[in-house]
Amino acid sequence: MPVPNVRHSEVDVLIIGAGPAGLMCANALANARVNVRIIDKRAVKVATGQADGISPRTIEVFQSYGLGERLLRESCEVHLAAFYNPNSTGGIETNKVFRLNGVEVALHQGAIESIFLDSMKELGVEVERSTIPTSIELSTDENELTDPSSHPVRVALQRLDLPEGESKEEIVHAKFVLGADGAHSWVRKTFDISMDGEQSDFIWGVLDMVPETDFPDVRNKSLIHSNYGSCLVVPREADRVRIYMQLADEDVINPETGRVDKDKMGPEQLLKVAQKSLHPYRFIPTNGISWWTLYIIGQRVASKFSIKDRVFIAGDACHTHSPKAGQGMNASMNDAHNLAWKIALVLRGWADMSLLSTYESERRKYAQELIAFDKMYSTLFSGKPMTEQNRDGVSHEQFLKAFQMFGGFTSGIGVHYSPSVVVNDSNQELASGLVIGQRFPPQKFIRAADACPIEIQDLLPSDSRFKLLVFAGKFGDPAQQARVESMVKDMQRPECFLNRYAMPGKSSTDSRFDVFTVSQGRKDDIQFMQFPAFLRPHWSKVLIDDIDVTGSFGGNGYSRYGIGPQGALVVVRPDGYVGAIASLDNVEELDTYFASFMKTSS
Amino acid sequence: MPVPNVRHSEVDVLIIGAGPAGLMCANALANARVNVRIIDKRAVKVATGQADGISPRTIEVFQSYGLGERLLRESCEVHLAAFYNPNSTGGIETNKVFRLNGVEVALHQGAIESIFLDSMKELGVEVERSTIPTSIELSTDENELTDPSSHPVRVALQRLDLPEGESKEEIVHAKFVLGADGAHSWVRKTFDISMDGEQSDFIWGVLDMVPETDFPDVRNKSLIHSNYGSCLVVPREADRVRIYMQLADEDVINPETGRVDKDKMGPEQLLKVAQKSLHPYRFIPTNGISWWTLYIIGQRVASKFSIKDRVFIAGDACHTHSPKAGQGMNASMNDAHNLAWKIALVLRGWADMSLLSTYESERRKYAQELIAFDKMYSTLFSGKPMTEQNRDGVSHEQFLKAFQMFGGFTSGIGVHYSPSVVVNDSNQELASGLVIGQRFPPQKFIRAADACPIEIQDLLPSDSRFKLLVFAGKFGDPAQQARVESMVKDMQRPECFLNRYAMPGKSSTDSRFDVFTVSQGRKDDIQFMQFPAFLRPHWSKVLIDDIDVTGSFGGNGYSRYGIGPQGALVVVRPDGYVGAIASLDNVEELDTYFASFMKTSS
Repeated sequence: MPVPNVRHSEVDVLIIGAGPAGLMCANALANARVNVRIIDKRAVKVATGQADGISPRTIEVFQSYGLGERLLRESCEVHLAAFYNPNSTGGIETNKVFRLNGVEVALHQGAIESIFLDSMKELGVEVERSTIPTSIELSTDENELTDPSSHPVRVALQRLDLPEGESKEEIVHAKFVLGADGAHSWVRKTFDISMDGEQSDFIWGVLDMVPETDFPDVRNKSLIHSNYGSCLVVPREADRVRIYMQLADEDVINPETGRVDKDKMGPEQLLKVAQKSLHPYRFIPTNGISWWTLYIIGQRVASKFSIKDRVFIAGDACHTHSPKAGQGMNASMNDAHNLAWKIALVLRGWADMSLLSTYESERRKYAQELIAFDKMYSTLFSGKPMTEQNRDGVSHEQFLKAFQMFGGFTSGIGVHYSPSVVVNDSNQELASGLVIGQRFPPQKFIRAADACPIEIQDLLPSDSRFKLLVFAGKFGDPAQQARVESMVKDMQRPECFLNRYAMPGKSSTDSRFDVFTVSQGRKDDIQFMQFPAFLRPHWSKVLIDDIDVTGSFGGNGYSRYGIGPQGALVVVRPDGYVGAIASLDNVEELDTYFASFMKTSS
Repeated sequence: MPVPNVRHSEVDVLIIGAGPAGLMCANALANARVNVRIIDKRAVKVATGQADGISPRTIEVFQSYGLGERLLRESCEVHLAAFYNPNSTGGIETNKVFRLNGVEVALHQGAIESIFLDSMKELGVEVERSTIPTSIELSTDENELTDPSSHPVRVALQRLDLPEGESKEEIVHAKFVLGADGAHSWVRKTFDISMDGEQSDFIWGVLDMVPETDFPDVRNKSLIHSNYGSCLVVPREADRVRIYMQLADEDVINPETGRVDKDKMGPEQLLKVAQKSLHPYRFIPTNGISWWTLYIIGQRVASKFSIKDRVFIAGDACHTHSPKAGQGMNASMNDAHNLAWKIALVLRGWADMSLLSTYESERRKYAQELIAFDKMYSTLFSGKPMTEQNRDGVSHEQFLKAFQMFGGFTSGIGVHYSPSVVVNDSNQELASGLVIGQRFPPQKFIRAADACPIEIQDLLPSDSRFKLLVFAGKFGDPAQQARVESMVKDMQRPECFLNRYAMPGKSSTDSRFDVFTVSQGRKDDIQFMQFPAFLRPHWSKVLIDDIDVTGSFGGNGYSRYGIGPQGALVVVRPDGYVGAIASLDNVEELDTYFASFMKTSS
């Protein structure tokens, strides 16, 4: 019998923690019309400071949720990275500036969180603040655990801000719980999940300011390797600049307590450290230090990302690392992006519970790669520069090489998921430029009906649907046209996945799948109406690999994607990753792919 | 003595009529913080239908007011124009599709008006509806007329929607009045301004629908010349299509009254006319006819656009023409765009009253060109196609040629203002691609400080300021660098326009002028800090004519603009038109240009 004053409730998904990972997940689930709640112990949201770099891949993810326009409007773009090394006169100098692997943007965490909060609010979801979990229990009943409609997670919540005497406790019965509760994750600790990795920690100082400066790369990302320490300078919105400095233990740690001592290192001392490293360039705050912090971070990955695929952890709760690669917030949000659609599909009854295990297999592998990258990068970053006296030091060339090698990594674009039920790596040769397990790369095509240039990624929103891209090949060629027509017949078989998993009363292309056709050829030679009616349920569904009327966009998509005149069928997952590739003659292979995790409508 | 119950008030600008011209003007003036009121006799705004085509130039103008993003999001893009002619089997066919001269968009007039209304509301200006002017008088006192701070226009207003007994009349004393009150303009008639042009009128029918069709160019702009009549098919937002048909007098006019008879021609009859012209293609409304109208229009231009530069007329009040070129609403909004900044500058005391006379000289000339174009186009459009039997008919080739010839016209990009106080056509040879009197063409450059690609038109907002673009030439060349430094010295002279007209207490580049520098060369070779500090009061002020880091944007700007390695100084007017060009060695020429209309701060 329930204790008096304790309310019981049910929810499909309970998210603990409203940082970037929790908010990304809550917004994604709200978009998918999932019944979701999100709690946070803080009474108000982060206002400024904290993490701020958004990688090219994360920008794409924001765009896939319709949030890209605002992100790009509010943030500042970063295109170049400059490397500075000690020079012969005791200062620093650069002679090389690199192009980043894709445009990054910088925006403070408070603004990023606001983007999610506003989007969620429109969908009727708001963060329940000043609320903490006090206990969490997972059922041990196997029948309950394997039934997607059960509520096997029991979480006790307590409101911290209610007047004395009012009901403070609530027991939530959830189908799924996400612990997005940061580096000191209560969820992780409660389930006794260990953090694996080195014990050595790094200490970082961070300063935000609008500088008066003669530093030529103040609007580029600059990595400075000086004889007085290393630092990272990142441009920010509204003329602000952030400086990250790796600090020596003795400068920061109180030897008696073994803890960071903010009396030893405040904003004035941090500014001095920065100015010393950046000499001979001037760096004078025009309006004071707008934000600063010190933090210690180790490089560790949680041993598990999930308990029985019912309780998950994401973000800093499962991986911690240094800020240099700018990957903390990006990795966190992409964890949530990976998880949300899988939970949504299971809750809708579209996918088997087994789909959920790919969250840990995909994201933990990535986190391990991230830590390995961070270690190597950190070692180079904190190592003394190579000089006449110190031949063992890090050479400029080593540093640049590391940067180039890991361009795909810091951009988030190189993330590669291994084969699983949702990643089938057969037939890669049919589309060598579309790496199975990687995100589907952007490319402009033109629409057959109106010659409007279309960024193909805009047709791949995070809307819980799998996308089937029919690369129809050289459609002008009669033999190829016949192949396409035969493929259409195959797609119209009742046992084809498009029909087998279609939603009752809906057309096969208007339910769990969205089908687009992309033809080779010139717009002038291709009549929209020539395509089989099945491929054009709406006039917007057919694209051509041609340049647009202004000559500014499009063309060469087939060649960039490595697709030949015979075409290819490409399945893109709801999160934008290439899931499977098949030949136009082999629609059945895709039937098999979907049968491995998809459920028919009951 | 005022009559009891009559309120007297003063306003800087009173706009009569809240259609596209009136709203464009009101929004532009509100942006410029001008004290403006706008009245309209209608109780509610236009909901749908009416004019809908937005030309490439008008899109640029919307962008210059920060309204482009919303316009492009809500509208539908049109890239191609298809021409259909009779074929041998009694139907129509095409074998040629043209690229439009720039992208056009289509959006119904109600949505366009909402963009202005929302923007104005944020600036604190709303349309006063159900309000009509009942009398207007202009002072004849020359002293009053030449004093920009006087209120020489007296307009009596009446509210139509007040309860019996409440005060209904107001006398407004305005510095300036704009009559944007449509083809039957009360302002124009009251001042007895004649409409010049032919007496013959054309009758048009218009239908909006979402069609079920096999017409291949349903998403392109299609001009159909059939044996059963001519029509124009224009794609619209939300899958809608609009069909314009030119009708025969006998089908529409009631011979007894001589007026349009809606009983003779309703939506069903119009649909039949369209279907006959479009045969053999199916055109079946899927959800009925969503809007339709009939209208008669003549090709006429008002003899004057202004009374003493105190009362102006704009839009349909001063020019009427057929809808085929899609120029009605565009011409109207561009009238207002031309006028607004001139009024704002005079009201601020920045410009002499004489600036206002360029409104009529620039826009009336354009209106006359538009009418001439429309006549020629209409004749071709309404003429019978040339056939074996009818050798005098219009050939397909004649039609296509007319379309190509006037591409610059329908796009709005070819609009060319003649020399005046604000258009000085000297030194054209220094920048042959920047036609003096035409709008400054778009081009991507990269920013020197951060390599961010920048569309130069985005630096030319409609913010009442003149822009000085310093094309610094080949800055890497020491001789050229010396020229630039000498030019900077010239610009620092107290008598230079940048200082002479500077606002008290503000820097010369932060007042009436905005100065940008555009250098030739490669980003890799040019250090931002090398430019004279005068040219970089902010890090964003220097651009380079190079491609961006992704290789997608920029480059060849100097060559497109026809500027050599010696550079050029280019003045862009607040409305985005090239006003003057000078050599870097001849800053004094620009002093003379500005002295011809600009006033020093009093």
